[in-house]
Amino acid sequence: MERTKFTLDETEIPTHWYNVQADLPKPLPPVLHPGTGNPVTPDDLAPLFPMELIKQEVSTERWIEIPEEVRDVYQLWRPTTLFRAHRLEKALDTPAKIFYKYEGTSPPGSHKPNTAVAQAYYNKQEGIKRISTETGAGQWGSALSFGGACFGVEITVYMVRISYDQKPYRRIMMEVWGAKCVPSPSEDTKAGRDMLAKWPDCPGSLGLAISEAVEDCMSRDDTHYALGSVLNHVLLHQTVNGLEAKKLMEKADAYPDIIVGCIGGGSNFAGLFLPFVKDKIDGTRPDLRIINVEPMSAPSITKGPYAYDFGDVAGLTPLIKMYTLGHSFIPPPIHAGGLRYHGMAPIICHLHQLGLVEARAEHQLATFEAGITFARTEGIISAPEPCHNIKVAIDEALKCRESGESKTILIAHSGHGHVDMAAYDAYLSGKLQDYEYPEDKVKEALAELPKVG
Amino acid sequence: MERTKFTLDETEIPTHWYNVQADLPKPLPPVLHPGTGNPVTPDDLAPLFPMELIKQEVSTERWIEIPEEVRDVYQLWRPTTLFRAHRLEKALDTPAKIFYKYEGTSPPGSHKPNTAVAQAYYNKQEGIKRISTETGAGQWGSALSFGGACFGVEITVYMVRISYDQKPYRRIMMEVWGAKCVPSPSEDTKAGRDMLAKWPDCPGSLGLAISEAVEDCMSRDDTHYALGSVLNHVLLHQTVNGLEAKKLMEKADAYPDIIVGCIGGGSNFAGLFLPFVKDKIDGTRPDLRIINVEPMSAPSITKGPYAYDFGDVAGLTPLIKMYTLGHSFIPPPIHAGGLRYHGMAPIICHLHQLGLVEARAEHQLATFEAGITFARTEGIISAPEPCHNIKVAIDEALKCRESGESKTILIAHSGHGHVDMAAYDAYLSGKLQDYEYPEDKVKEALAELPKVG
Repeated sequence: MERTKFTLDETEIPTHWYNVQADLPKPLPPVLHPGTGNPVTPDDLAPLFPMELIKQEVSTERWIEIPEEVRDVYQLWRPTTLFRAHRLEKALDTPAKIFYKYEGTSPPGSHKPNTAVAQAYYNKQEGIKRISTETGAGQWGSALSFGGACFGVEITVYMVRISYDQKPYRRIMMEVWGAKCVPSPSEDTKAGRDMLAKWPDCPGSLGLAISEAVEDCMSRDDTHYALGSVLNHVLLHQTVNGLEAKKLMEKADAYPDIIVGCIGGGSNFAGLFLPFVKDKIDGTRPDLRIINVEPMSAPSITKGPYAYDFGDVAGLTPLIKMYTLGHSFIPPPIHAGGLRYHGMAPIICHLHQLGLVEARAEHQLATFEAGITFARTEGIISAPEPCHNIKVAIDEALKCRESGESKTILIAHSGHGHVDMAAYDAYLSGKLQDYEYPEDKVKEALAELPKVG
Repeated sequence: MERTKFTLDETEIPTHWYNVQADLPKPLPPVLHPGTGNPVTPDDLAPLFPMELIKQEVSTERWIEIPEEVRDVYQLWRPTTLFRAHRLEKALDTPAKIFYKYEGTSPPGSHKPNTAVAQAYYNKQEGIKRISTETGAGQWGSALSFGGACFGVEITVYMVRISYDQKPYRRIMMEVWGAKCVPSPSEDTKAGRDMLAKWPDCPGSLGLAISEAVEDCMSRDDTHYALGSVLNHVLLHQTVNGLEAKKLMEKADAYPDIIVGCIGGGSNFAGLFLPFVKDKIDGTRPDLRIINVEPMSAPSITKGPYAYDFGDVAGLTPLIKMYTLGHSFIPPPIHAGGLRYHGMAPIICHLHQLGLVEARAEHQLATFEAGITFARTEGIISAPEPCHNIKVAIDEALKCRESGESKTILIAHSGHGHVDMAAYDAYLSGKLQDYEYPEDKVKEALAELPKVG
């Protein structure tokens, strides 16, 4: 029997998250206060986040302990499995060795609860009763709803309208876990009302939904805000996945030549690759390639400038140094809702600036084609987001077929697509389309970048 | 940290299925040929099934080896996890210990591929190119589509119309795996056309879809038929789950006082309990209670006579001795489509006759209420089918709260409800209804039982 599956047992859930800030060759550029242009202070952030998360955001400790209560919930689906994709390799007739670490067995079906559970926990610890947040495809909103249910914290989710309409199942999941889900733009906030006045049929965007969630939080004393990606503490929590992956690759007696993952805000992929990038920073594995895969509809690293920008549409967040398409940019309505974001995690951008990671952009149709190939070989029906990295993994494996090289490719597989079947239906019935990179709209949005320094 | 999770490693997938026919105190009544009234022979069944499955159907060998190719695919999700439901226990304030064995991490999200993969394999081995089958909620159809993709066998699925309409996602999953899905009743078969002539809006039933799939198979030389439940070989394949559960309960240092599972055709629950019922048959565990949970809309064991009947509506299958509501009975359209069947697995019926298992029927609304409680404590959003056993497990745990007893309850959890969110939406928005037990319709259907002997 070919060994397809590599697992850790329930006692091997990592006890600490890995903080790459301890090992960066140069520190991250500071996050700036939009009013003063000075670095933000913990006090600036206190209305939004629990103090423990604010500390994690700027910590340079290498290892940060995972609270026992969080590990206790992690047990419901962690450690997750590393698979060797023998069937896919055979179908591609490639000498490449393809592995994937699969996060689809969590209750919401994605990697998002790795941080959702932690964030709900720290808020509960600090006496917070309610959390507002935004969601794109609904993965994050449903994950935080699950996290809220675990610790008895009330959750309100602003969901990007296009996904709210395309993916009603995610909204219902939030409600099953007891949360409230509001389509964004909504009438509940000034940011939402302003947008609806300008553009009544606005499909929404992650940036706009963030504005609404932040405004909701700022207008109430009992409420904090939570972000499902981008920020350092979110990437930190996701490293539980990469730490498991590293142990499991050892069990499989392998080390990746190439790691691929899709990036919207960047947390899933960073969670997987950060424990490996460490080996590249310290020179142990200089040849390791880490490929970030973006959608052609929102290619922030591949097309955007590295600049200070807001995380949201309305300009309520601090200023973050990142690759950006402009905070007012609203990406075309691709089905990979989790990738429709104008910016990118500062840690990934910084690593890209340092030449430690690379990026590539893919069109929607080709990613679904790859998703079908994966489903018919490996069995798993992937969410539209990881179909992006599967596409790139297949391309790299086919290059190996040409060159005869037997490279080891590791895919960060963020979750299943059981709630995204309408997208597959559109693809299979020929109704799905690609969108040209919206160059003009990006230009317009970039003209509105905030002036800094 | 409380121990919540019990796992086996990938090398511990059972190597053999357990065949309860080796241990039955009395043999099963024979399956009869509807024309002659004599026991069916292997030759009678050869047009439908591969010879290996026909042998398994009547075998009295205790252990039947799982082919390596099947175990190879099992690795994609097996062994599955046993969870201790600490959070649910706490919410119920019960001294009961509640465990659940969870089958929702398979590619289609249910227990069904345990047999689908095996059936696709044996058909492939015997040179069969195409398999026709039926599906209720779509769990079986999608599982067989996955199995077909694994071994390169073409699959056509007749899907009960009400589920085809309520659950389009399952149909799309089948198509993603390369299968063809037809709503039943259809114009493609005589059985379908006859029904449509009588009742153009017929919501369909599992019994009718079986008629269509059998007719499809009989009309083509390259095609076999596959059944996702009821038959002995299907229950046999599902015992891989119960064998794992037994090892895992040992790991948890526990043995169940009560095992609960929902039954439509009965294969998921039997797969879990058969390795335990052995202990009851041989007297090791005389007090073990095994509770089969039916929907009030199709309560075959609790309301039906134990009699010879057809497995399908049109009367194409052999005659099976089972509890039945009459093969022409079409159950009300509850969301637990997998439980809408007029009959029951002969093995479960026989064990019920022998006093080794019991049965109970539940209404739809109460099962969704239990499902919500489970989701908000244990995280997992359950398919409507296992909500039935969760309801009974909660009832039994609450009895323990009254009596102060600390019983151990094991739930057979057949899968997640990510594709059933419309049902939860209906429940949460107050649009879901209960259906009275349709006594008159059952009477009518029972009047049409075939005369035997």
